[in-house]
Amino acid sequence: MLSSPNKVSEQVMDIDQFYNDLTRADLKPLWAQTGMLTDEPRDRAIPFRWRATEMARLGERSRHLVPIDRGGDRRVLLCANPGLGGAPAATSTMAAGVQYLGGGESAPAHRHTPAALRFMLTGEDVWTRVDGDPIMMKRGDLVLTPSWTFHEHYNLGKVPAAWVDVIDVPLITHLAGIFYEDGPSDDVDTQTKPASWSEIQFAGGPGLVPTSSSAASTPTPYSPLFVYRWSDTTAALDAQLAAKGTEQAAIRYVDPTRGCDVMPTMRCEALRLRPASATRTDRQTGSRIGAVLNGSGVVVVGSDTFGLSAGDIYVVPSWATHRLESADQMDVFTTSDAPVFEALGVFRRVIVA
Amino acid sequence: MLSSPNKVSEQVMDIDQFYNDLTRADLKPLWAQTGMLTDEPRDRAIPFRWRATEMARLGERSRHLVPIDRGGDRRVLLCANPGLGGAPAATSTMAAGVQYLGGGESAPAHRHTPAALRFMLTGEDVWTRVDGDPIMMKRGDLVLTPSWTFHEHYNLGKVPAAWVDVIDVPLITHLAGIFYEDGPSDDVDTQTKPASWSEIQFAGGPGLVPTSSSAASTPTPYSPLFVYRWSDTTAALDAQLAAKGTEQAAIRYVDPTRGCDVMPTMRCEALRLRPASATRTDRQTGSRIGAVLNGSGVVVVGSDTFGLSAGDIYVVPSWATHRLESADQMDVFTTSDAPVFEALGVFRRVIVA
Amino acid sequence: MLSSPNKVSEQVMDIDQFYNDLTRADLKPLWAQTGMLTDEPRDRAIPFRWRATEMARLGERSRHLVPIDRGGDRRVLLCANPGLGGAPAATSTMAAGVQYLGGGESAPAHRHTPAALRFMLTGEDVWTRVDGDPIMMKRGDLVLTPSWTFHEHYNLGKVPAAWVDVIDVPLITHLAGIFYEDGPSDDVDTQTKPASWSEIQFAGGPGLVPTSSSAASTPTPYSPLFVYRWSDTTAALDAQLAAKGTEQAAIRYVDPTRGCDVMPTMRCEALRLRPASATRTDRQTGSRIGAVLNGSGVVVVGSDTFGLSAGDIYVVPSWATHRLESADQMDVFTTSDAPVFEALGVFRRVIVA
Amino acid sequence: MLSSPNKVSEQVMDIDQFYNDLTRADLKPLWAQTGMLTDEPRDRAIPFRWRATEMARLGERSRHLVPIDRGGDRRVLLCANPGLGGAPAATSTMAAGVQYLGGGESAPAHRHTPAALRFMLTGEDVWTRVDGDPIMMKRGDLVLTPSWTFHEHYNLGKVPAAWVDVIDVPLITHLAGIFYEDGPSDDVDTQTKPASWSEIQFAGGPGLVPTSSSAASTPTPYSPLFVYRWSDTTAALDAQLAAKGTEQAAIRYVDPTRGCDVMPTMRCEALRLRPASATRTDRQTGSRIGAVLNGSGVVVVGSDTFGLSAGDIYVVPSWATHRLESADQMDVFTTSDAPVFEALGVFRRVIVA
Repeated sequence: MLSSPNKVSEQVMDIDQFYNDLTRADLKPLWAQTGMLTDEPRDRAIPFRWRATEMARLGERSRHLVPIDRGGDRRVLLCANPGLGGAPAATSTMAAGVQYLGGGESAPAHRHTPAALRFMLTGEDVWTRVDGDPIMMKRGDLVLTPSWTFHEHYNLGKVPAAWVDVIDVPLITHLAGIFYEDGPSDDVDTQTKPASWSEIQFAGGPGLVPTSSSAASTPTPYSPLFVYRWSDTTAALDAQLAAKGTEQAAIRYVDPTRGCDVMPTMRCEALRLRPASATRTDRQTGSRIGAVLNGSGVVVVGSDTFGLSAGDIYVVPSWATHRLESADQMDVFTTSDAPVFEALGVFRRVIVA
Repeated sequence: MLSSPNKVSEQVMDIDQFYNDLTRADLKPLWAQTGMLTDEPRDRAIPFRWRATEMARLGERSRHLVPIDRGGDRRVLLCANPGLGGAPAATSTMAAGVQYLGGGESAPAHRHTPAALRFMLTGEDVWTRVDGDPIMMKRGDLVLTPSWTFHEHYNLGKVPAAWVDVIDVPLITHLAGIFYEDGPSDDVDTQTKPASWSEIQFAGGPGLVPTSSSAASTPTPYSPLFVYRWSDTTAALDAQLAAKGTEQAAIRYVDPTRGCDVMPTMRCEALRLRPASATRTDRQTGSRIGAVLNGSGVVVVGSDTFGLSAGDIYVVPSWATHRLESADQMDVFTTSDAPVFEALGVFRRVIVA
Repeated sequence: MLSSPNKVSEQVMDIDQFYNDLTRADLKPLWAQTGMLTDEPRDRAIPFRWRATEMARLGERSRHLVPIDRGGDRRVLLCANPGLGGAPAATSTMAAGVQYLGGGESAPAHRHTPAALRFMLTGEDVWTRVDGDPIMMKRGDLVLTPSWTFHEHYNLGKVPAAWVDVIDVPLITHLAGIFYEDGPSDDVDTQTKPASWSEIQFAGGPGLVPTSSSAASTPTPYSPLFVYRWSDTTAALDAQLAAKGTEQAAIRYVDPTRGCDVMPTMRCEALRLRPASATRTDRQTGSRIGAVLNGSGVVVVGSDTFGLSAGDIYVVPSWATHRLESADQMDVFTTSDAPVFEALGVFRRVIVA
Repeated sequence: MLSSPNKVSEQVMDIDQFYNDLTRADLKPLWAQTGMLTDEPRDRAIPFRWRATEMARLGERSRHLVPIDRGGDRRVLLCANPGLGGAPAATSTMAAGVQYLGGGESAPAHRHTPAALRFMLTGEDVWTRVDGDPIMMKRGDLVLTPSWTFHEHYNLGKVPAAWVDVIDVPLITHLAGIFYEDGPSDDVDTQTKPASWSEIQFAGGPGLVPTSSSAASTPTPYSPLFVYRWSDTTAALDAQLAAKGTEQAAIRYVDPTRGCDVMPTMRCEALRLRPASATRTDRQTGSRIGAVLNGSGVVVVGSDTFGLSAGDIYVVPSWATHRLESADQMDVFTTSDAPVFEALGVFRRVIVA
């Protein structure tokens, strides 16, 4: 259809005026929102890796420079994904970092709606209390501090302690669901016990629960077992490798009373690769964070390849391809937000190669 | 502990240097992240209301200025919450707006991982196809286009049509979970049928399902019933009011094969207030969007009071107090992200007054 | 291996003595229990049909001979399956029969752990109260009186009423789970209301529930909807037939808040066959009871063929082949114990032809 | 109301005739069924106990007299509850007994819909294969052979083996749900492995599952873990006792992928009583079977008191009061049909004292 020049310019003026009027009315034209619906996920977070050696050096400095004080703060160096514009977040949904606690130091009790976990790297006689239950943390142990549980840390030993923290603050912040509360007292209760009540309840082996706490009566949306010992995890991985004759073993940490993920927002898994082996290349929606416990190798994320050593942390953005390759035998602990995607009916995972 | 002036300035230099080194290492000190964990949710979205009259006027102009073309776009005026910095989002997790389709126009098929719903305002002989199933949309009807279902709209009538759109794009974008796909053809299939297959399956009444599609076999995470007729909804509300002798009636739209919310990310409800009555004042985590179908009144959100008339849209940010008050009898359709909070174990709701 | 005659007879004596000693010790040798584990189910119940005309004639006589009195009893003629040795049971797990209540008569309140249902045949102004909620019963309505709900019947009309009763007494008796309690008073509360509270809650249409009673909060193991109106059922069946162009339509009655069967022990379905059509031949574990509401035809169960007319009741034993054939259009209401088999992980169903 | 003598006798004749006519029509008057609905459960099974010493003596004789042959049979002495009229059943829903397998003997593979379990008493190098997976059975181990899993037993050792069998034959028989099938070959596959595949999958500890078999993908209605080692169970009980400072510890065996009972028809638990202690007195619907593994004491069931020693088996009928009292420390393994009652919505349990 032909338009006279005047008509065209009238129409342009019309549309400019129209867009101005929309703005004044706090409205936006959907048709002008380019990039709103992309063919595939575009995660602002980028593939990245933080070196254990560098984090440890900086962590050691922080221990000297920054005292532990009352407050929401802990002495944590948070991974800041370069794609996220300076936000203290490792991925779009999760913050991660390393927490340092000197011998004799303690971090007072608090609680918050974001759920967190600790994956222990180094330290002796280090404890976390979860809703009053004292849990010793040894190398490789996974300790949960689920949403709205009080938790405090104390290092009764002489050597500095360090562990990986993962917390879903970016997700809960985006949802506008943050609540926070200080613990009942400024003093840390440095109680210790040979085993936490939580693990006593599930002592013995798989498939054994106290008669008094069977599945139907579990009152919380998270696992009542707050600690998963590395001694158990390594035994599980060894058993799989011995039996399967394959190149790798993988376990998922689950709520022993329901079999679901340990917390509604985070999936935790451990992976062991034999020397000089590799995982399949996969991609999945949502973000993943890996922490190397033992061994070395590389992780290939999209077009990036990162060397990995014990203590390193890496992130895999949503829908990025991902493959782990080991040099010597490598143990990796991973956290993902897959349960969120599954709960919302939008989880996808494919094996690429 | 006393420090000599030199020591202090050395320490300041140390810490400045330390913070610089952290930044170079893509790390952030947690203890310096103020405002990360707030006592209560701080939603960037603010209480707001968009007037039907203004949206209709602008919608009418858009119909003349903006043709319907192939693409992800629809002719939708999106509510832009002033708290969200110009983003085309009504709340932190949901976009909302009004879609305008002229007589004889159609919007071609596409699908995306964000889930959407339509709440019909005005039009005659207007249809949405959901995965091929043609659904006529009449005033007050709720039509679902769940995650990854193909959908297209066509107006076979002579008069312009308008309906409320709600879609969880802000949530799925934040999760980095957006997938998008054009429909199989440029042509809209303008098929019509007296009733959609989806509603035929659940025809008759509550608690009746085809023997072939009982609960256990439901393969999708969303309701297999794609349309909820206003004639049913108004009958349900009337029945409640007649029986209870109370001031208000409220129904939740649910998946008839499971009783859960219609889609994993959105809760839909309808509320009827008798003339000159009010709801309790409540607050809940997550955001809520209301659309007035009939009647008038006000909504009090936090310290704001907004007048309401038919077609108005308002938003309630996370944890803001909220109360509806009617002038004449008022029907309100609401959508919230409560199912997300519930799935993640962080939902809270309190009655304030 | 050869044995001397003496040896054999010694051994026989030994084994006789051994079996005697076992008996004295209240023990049984498993190896002597023939027929304990059969290749396929052997139901003691046999295929059978009871004629409406004969039951009605006898029901009318009972009305004159047997007054309604206080007690566990009702004026019910129970189907006695000839295979079950005189037990008042239609199948191995369910009793069935027709209950007769004269104009002005009432049956007082009681409750019991066996779950029961009523499928209404004839009567005017007839009511059942379920836990105090008065429900009018019209032809074709399904009324539930779930486990441990108080229920009482009253006929406020002038004409005698009759309905089909199905109750899982044989199952609960075998489980040794019978509890029984008389109602709070000898007097029947003959309250009436235009609609029961139970159905008001789910008025309007499929997928609409009161906001106050969403799925998660349902406190009972059975449907909170106690009555399913024939007007709804027939509309559902009509809609299916109109849309599908097939020979039959079938609906399942489900709990509108969960989509599961109406009660944990009984599956209820309604089937409509066009004139001169037939179902597939199937067989399934567990027993089924059918009651014809409208039309006529035959049911083929195993090698038996039974003519069917309105009001007839028939039974299909476990694993017997089964096919319905219509003469004119036929509506059949069926109850089965399939939910029990499913819950116990032993349900099987096959299409034979 | 007065009746003339003639009238009365006429009426008696009428009712006699009526009852005769009912019988001819295969109908029963409900009102004449006395004892159908009792105030409380009346279990035909009675409280009872079978002595290990007597069973062992008779088992030893059976080993000499009865060869192991191909067939549904095993060399099992079944407990015959005196209340059940000679049926080979310990309770209304479960059969129980002790199976004897001589050194070098084997029992060929078969499967059946009834679910069974084995609780090992004595033997060395004794194995059960469950769907091909070889499981060594040691004292105190619980081995599942769920519904329709092939299973065979072999004793590769030199000494006779004995274990407790519990199987839900009486329940599945009543339901008319028995299917049976011989194994693929007459020969027992006497494969052995250091650990069964089933237990390798869940090796390591509680809450660890293979990534490849998370909860959502569990395809069976029973636990994928087929063996629960006594070494685990005793550790769990010890941990509870050490922590709680109470008189007793109790664990439930559960499906590690779902937390529900190990099989849909049977609940398995283990109880440890300190010396000279007692449980509360309770009663619950459904039947319970106990087997003493270690120690001695008494069980009080209703008005009966039975002495208990290692290997004894006792039964608690439905709703009978029940209390265990220990002399020295006593370990008891129990099986109940509580999951059936729970699934059907009729479970009740009360603490009496």
